Formats: sequence, C-alpha cells, structure tokens
Amino acid sequence: MPEAPTRLEVEGLQQNLREVQRLIADQAAPGELRARLDALHPADIAYVLEALPLAERLAVWDLVKADRDGEILLEVSDAVRESLIASMDSQELVAATGTLEADQIADLAPDLPEQVVEDVIRALPQEEREQLRAALSYDEGSVGALMDFDQITVREDATLEAATRTLRGLDELPVHTDQFFVVDREQRLTGTLPLARLIVSDLALQVREVMVPAGVTLYPENPAEDAAQAFERYDLVSAPVVDHFGRLMGRLTVNAVVDHIRQKSSQAQLAESGLRAEEDIFAPVLNSFKNRWSWLAINLVTAFIASRVIGAFEGSIEKLVALAALMPIVAGIGGNSGNQTSTMIVRALALGQIQEPYWPKLITKELGVGTLNGVLWGTLLGAVTYLLYGSVALGGVMALAMLLTLLLAAAMGVAIPYARARLGRDPAAGSSVLITACTDSGGFFIFLGLATLFLV
Amino acid sequence: MPEAPTRLEVEGLQQNLREVQRLIADQAAPGELRARLDALHPADIAYVLEALPLAERLAVWDLVKADRDGEILLEVSDAVRESLIASMDSQELVAATGTLEADQIADLAPDLPEQVVEDVIRALPQEEREQLRAALSYDEGSVGALMDFDQITVREDATLEAATRTLRGLDELPVHTDQFFVVDREQRLTGTLPLARLIVSDLALQVREVMVPAGVTLYPENPAEDAAQAFERYDLVSAPVVDHFGRLMGRLTVNAVVDHIRQKSSQAQLAESGLRAEEDIFAPVLNSFKNRWSWLAINLVTAFIASRVIGAFEGSIEKLVALAALMPIVAGIGGNSGNQTSTMIVRALALGQIQEPYWPKLITKELGVGTLNGVLWGTLLGAVTYLLYGSVALGGVMALAMLLTLLLAAAMGVAIPYARARLGRDPAAGSSVLITACTDSGGFFIFLGLATLFLV
Repeated sequence: MPEAPTRLEVEGLQQNLREVQRLIADQAAPGELRARLDALHPADIAYVLEALPLAERLAVWDLVKADRDGEILLEVSDAVRESLIASMDSQELVAATGTLEADQIADLAPDLPEQVVEDVIRALPQEEREQLRAALSYDEGSVGALMDFDQITVREDATLEAATRTLRGLDELPVHTDQFFVVDREQRLTGTLPLARLIVSDLALQVREVMVPAGVTLYPENPAEDAAQAFERYDLVSAPVVDHFGRLMGRLTVNAVVDHIRQKSSQAQLAESGLRAEEDIFAPVLNSFKNRWSWLAINLVTAFIASRVIGAFEGSIEKLVALAALMPIVAGIGGNSGNQTSTMIVRALALGQIQEPYWPKLITKELGVGTLNGVLWGTLLGAVTYLLYGSVALGGVMALAMLLTLLLAAAMGVAIPYARARLGRDPAAGSSVLITACTDSGGFFIFLGLATLFLV
Repeated sequence: MPEAPTRLEVEGLQQNLREVQRLIADQAAPGELRARLDALHPADIAYVLEALPLAERLAVWDLVKADRDGEILLEVSDAVRESLIASMDSQELVAATGTLEADQIADLAPDLPEQVVEDVIRALPQEEREQLRAALSYDEGSVGALMDFDQITVREDATLEAATRTLRGLDELPVHTDQFFVVDREQRLTGTLPLARLIVSDLALQVREVMVPAGVTLYPENPAEDAAQAFERYDLVSAPVVDHFGRLMGRLTVNAVVDHIRQKSSQAQLAESGLRAEEDIFAPVLNSFKNRWSWLAINLVTAFIASRVIGAFEGSIEKLVALAALMPIVAGIGGNSGNQTSTMIVRALALGQIQEPYWPKLITKELGVGTLNGVLWGTLLGAVTYLLYGSVALGGVMALAMLLTLLLAAAMGVAIPYARARLGRDPAAGSSVLITACTDSGGFFIFLGLATLFLV
C-alpha cells in the first residue's frame, strides 16, 4: 500500500510553486514556508526546487527536514541534483543517503563523491551492502539497474494462514505489491501468489496449491527497454528478477518502468535537438554552454563541408547569381524529407519490426514517395523559378535537382539507419546529423552540378 | 489478477516474428501457423501484424480466431488498424467489437464505420451503453477518454467478510485492482480499501473502519497529462474518477497511463520530423505521401522566403561570390542553436515550471550562452574564412554575422515558445519550423547585409 502522501496534487503543482515563491519573497515567514514544505510530498518539493533559481533553490533546500533530503534528491532532475549536492558537505550527504534503500542509493551513487559512497556502504548491514553492490554492477539501461529489493517472498510449503500472519507483522506492504514471490528452500523462484488469489482462498491451503506460474521472469542483464515493453504488452504491476540459477534477486515494478520510459523519451527529445542532458533552466551560462557546444561543433563541420561544395562551383554562381538564391531551397527540402524517412525507419528498427527480407520493399516504397514528392514539388518550384527568372532552362534544372535530391534523401533515410543497425550501433543516435550532412552537400552538388552542365 | 497470457516473451518477440514469417513462406502448413498464432498473446499478434507487408498481414489476420479480433485491433497501431478494418465487412466488425468492454469500444469507435458503431451500441446492455456514451463524450487527452469501468466497489457499511465473499463470486479480479472503491448509498466515493489492508484486517470489521481516504481523485475532464504526472509522482496503480457530485464513475489504471505516455512521446517524436501520424511501414506510397506532404509544403514556403532574402542581395553576391558559399554556415548554426534553446524552454513550459517573474532571468541566460557561442564559433569561422579567402574584412564580417545570428537565435528560441504559451497554444507544435524560418532568413539577412555594408 502506498505510504499516504500528505497532500496529493493533480492540478495544484503550480499553485504550490506560486505559494512557495510568495513565501520566499516575503522573507518574514521562514516558519510558514517550512510548514508549507513539510506538508508536501517529496516529489512535489522536487518540482518546486527545479523551478527556482539557484539562490532561492538553496534557501528552500536548507528549510527541508534533513530526513527527507535523500528522497528528494532521488526525485529531482540530474542537473538540479548536482546543484543541491554541491551545497552539502560529506556529513550531510552520508546522513541523507543513509535514509534510503539499497536500490535507491545505487541510483544516487554516480552523483555522489566517492568518499561519501564508501562511508555509506560501510554503514550498511551485510544484506543491503550486497544488494547495493549488485545494483551498482549493472549497466544503466538494464533491468538490474532498475530493480528493487522490496519483494515479499513466501515458501511453497507454508500455509496461506502463515503467509497472512507474516503480512500482519509488516507495518505496511511495499508499494506495488500485487503478488508475493514463491520460493523453494534454495531461494529459487517457483511461482507467484497474487494478492487477489490470497484473499479468495481457504487459509488452510498450502501456498503451492494456490500459486500460479510466474508470467514474465526477468534477468538483471535484460535490457530495460525489453522489460518495459513486456510491462506494457502484458499490463504488469511487478515482475520477479532472477539470476541464472533461477534464484530470486529482486523485482521490477511498474513505477520504475514508467520512470524509465519517461527518461528514454526525454533523452530522445533532447538528443534530437543536440542537448547532451537535461538542463537546469537556471544553470550558469558556462554549464549550458558545455551541454550544447559539441552538437554545434559537429554541425559546423558538416556546414563547412557543404560550404566547400558550393565553393567548388563559385565560377558558375558568378555567371548566374540566381543559383545562390535557389540552392538552399533544394538542400533544405531534401533534409526535411530525408529525416521523415529515417524517423520512420528508426522507430520500426527500435521495435525490431523490420525483417531482413523486407528491406528491398522498404527502399522501393521510400523511393516511390521520394519520386512523388520530387515530381510534385519539383514541378511547382520549377514553375516558380521560371516565373521569377524567366528562364525555362533554369526552371528545368530546379525541377530535376529537386527530384534527384529527394531520391537521394529517401535512399539515405533508409541506408543510414540500416547501416548503423548492421554495425550494432544505435540507429537513432546521430542519424539526423548524418542525413542532413548528405542532403545539404548532396543537394548543393546536384543543383549546382546540373546548372553547370546545362546552363553555364 | 492479470489474465494469464499463454506465452510471455521478453526477448522472444522477434523470434515469434521470424517463425510466423517462415510458416507463411512455407504455405504448406496453415494449420501449424494457426496453432502458433493461437498460442500468442493478443499484443504479440499485434506486433507480428505490424511487421508484415499487407498481403502477408491479411493472410495472418484471416487465420486469427474471430473472438480475438477485437482485442488485437485495440493493440495495433492506428495505421495498421486501418488496414485490418478495411479488410473486414460490417458483420465481422460488429462481432469483433462485441467482445470488448465499453471503454475499449470507445477507443476503437473513431476508426469504425458509423453504422457499425450504431449497431454495436444498440446491442449493448443499458449500463454499458451509458458507459460507452460517457467515454465517447470526453476529449482525447482527457482522463475521461482513458478511464475504464472495471472498478470494484464496496459499501461503507458492509463487513470485510461480506466484501471478501463478493470477491469469491468473481471469476478473477480485473487487471490492476490494487484497491476497492468505497461508496455510500448515493454512489459517492468516500474512501478506498487497499487489497493489502483487506488481507491483514479482521473480517468482522466494517469497511468504514478499515478504509483509507482516497489519495488522488480525478475528474473525467482532467488533462490526461496531469493524471500521468500524478501516477508518476505518487507511484499509483489505480485512481478513482468521480463526477462533480463526487459519485464514482470509473477508474484510471497505470497501464492506461503508460499507454498514454508512450503515445504522447511518440507523437512528439513524429511531429518533430514532420510526420502527421504513426505510419504503417508498408503503407502504400500514396498514404505515406499524405502523411508527409504538409510539413514539406510548410518548409518549402519558409525556404522560399529565405531564398527571396538572398535574392535581394544578388548584386552583392555577384561582386563577391564567396558570400554564396559562406552564408549557409551562418544560417545553419543559427538554426541549430535556436532549436537547442527552444527545446529547453518548451520542456520547462510543458511541466509548468517557468514562473512569470523568471522570464527576464531566462532570456538573459540564453543571450549569455548565445554570446559565448557567438564569440567562440565566430572567431573560429572568421579565422578560417581569412585563411580561405585571404580577406581580413570578410573574416570580420563572418565573425560578426555569426555572433548576431546566434543572439537572434537565442532571442527567438525563448520568444517563440513564450508567445505561443501566452496565446494559449501548444508551445511545442511548430516551434522548430518557426525558429528555423527566423534563423534562416535572419542569418542570410545579417550576413549579406553586413557584407553589403562593409565589403561591397
């Protein structure tokens, strides 16, 4: 059962934010602000902290009760977490981390000073220390990094009566406990006992008579994305994680899956625009710069190459200056069209839905769409060019260049993700830069080349 | 308790796909293929259907047992659903839809012929008919459109004994039942009874003595996104949906939330690349064209405007043709940098985390990052230009143009999402086109304008 949050807000988050903001501005009432914060759920305090500039953020952070620090650090974005951790000394950090469970400490560990992590590990009881070591040993993006250790286990040979008694002994059930995991003497998972089944069964029965086979069973090495898809497809709330001897290690819950999905989609969105990581909106200029410069540098290189392609045709442009005005249209539409194709291919690849024999079908289709677009927009732009410059030949070159560039874009939109997937790389990463580089340089080359052949 | 899927696959999806593919190719064994399909979970059949070209897809679809059609239609992507529905006659569609519950029918209804929907409504029992009407009346993207009607209610004055008896009467609990909803005589929600609490409590007690206050309570008009955030923040599995008299209408479950999050992130990703909707990778060329042309048309217009800006400076380019080769660099980097800024602002706006008083702080910061980028890349490009063309003045113009364009990009990257949000529009939609339009035309204008002033 979820620990009852003090105040749950669906639409009220921004209201919290405004109130806190007002109380900060008032200054007169630190007591009132502290009381307001105490009444908020850690996730809501995290929300407020993210939305405040550094000075205000740290003022609020100082007022938060120390025993909630750990939970709040877990909830804030990476960038904001960094700013909060920077404001704390080792002792405070050890204290904050000490209130957390092993899987949560593992989430925080990469952001903490090494010394703090070591102190925390030393203070842990043996079992949790091993859990923490295990959790730290798995790659980000694997089930092992997302699992927790809050599973409740029952033995096959226990009676439901005894299982129920154990439950009564617990203060409350861990969040997202929809089933107990049934294990044998060697801690090997043999099935699960859904809560709902426990309720409707005769308490005199043995667990083994009532349990059901575990649906999805995960290994810590499974990619988190596969597990997330299983949770979605089969509507799971929790799933057991076992080692290669079949022994129960921990569990994965739907909330960890939801967090993972959000994080992945957020990373994809950021990467698309060339931000390396989530940015604290109030980050110092230098931090923002570091987060963004590499993308700009890469684009600068590709833009420079395209510029050199143009440079090779300076003679033609000198003779027919209209080319300079028309060439960005060809390259621009090529880039847009190529990215449409690659987005679709990348998504299907991510789902593993493109089978080897169907690649020719896909490329044929994309070349078909490219031809249709090329004929349509090419004709239109050719006509407009003729109207503007009164030259049929220039209009013809424009139309033909458009068609060829869109075919190039379609081919690259399929080929680049395909090649990256074949090489075992993430097909999404960098596809857009590569395609734009091809269509820019390619578009300029095709258009200026045709013009040089036929017009100059 | 989830209905036990016949075979759960974490990494096995692609293996299913290959096997089905092999069985189709064999042709000899429709019986074997049918048996293979019968053993798959509806979500896994949906996965296979999405990955097959049209002819193979329809062949497989014909082999699927008719009573599973409805569930599978719910699972496939919109585009693939369209292709399946097009292959069915009204009678088959009514039969397929008839196996679904009211909230599921509502999800399918927009894709069905009107006549089919009417027939289905007529065949429903009174209560479900009202549920369906209710579900159809809420906007996509609201809680009402995502809720289901599978909640289990108990009366305050019942004993736990009686509540447990009711449960025993049910075949199985609906998926994601972590709590029962407690209502009074007028069906008003007065609290919830978590399953975990039911298990550990004395069965002689009355529900009212054991129940807890409902944490989050939703209205059907709440934006789904707000509800999703509440599920994430407070780790919910289900939440009650009530009308404005406090009467229980239905519930929202975490699986509906997960679907919503995936769909939103997928739409954002598609929109970013100018695809109007999820595309069937084997769609006919014409369907793909329809999905993509409008984005290309918009970009064509903005590219054309940029082209006219260049056209205005043809005289300068004629005299100094190096300008033609250099100008795309300035415009390109401006576009990239502007999109970095706006991505960050749009994300913070979507979370409601930018408070009115902090806008000046944000714009100052972004202009700071722009200045830093401008000085750095401007100096670098200025130097390269000098080396290439041997003209200090041209290098200086390049450097200055770069700085000014990056400042323009920073200003637009903040101003465009801000303006859209102030006008009550979605700040994300179209921001990238607008910014690229500004930085393209602006970048050309700044660079060619400076060159005309100082060089020609």
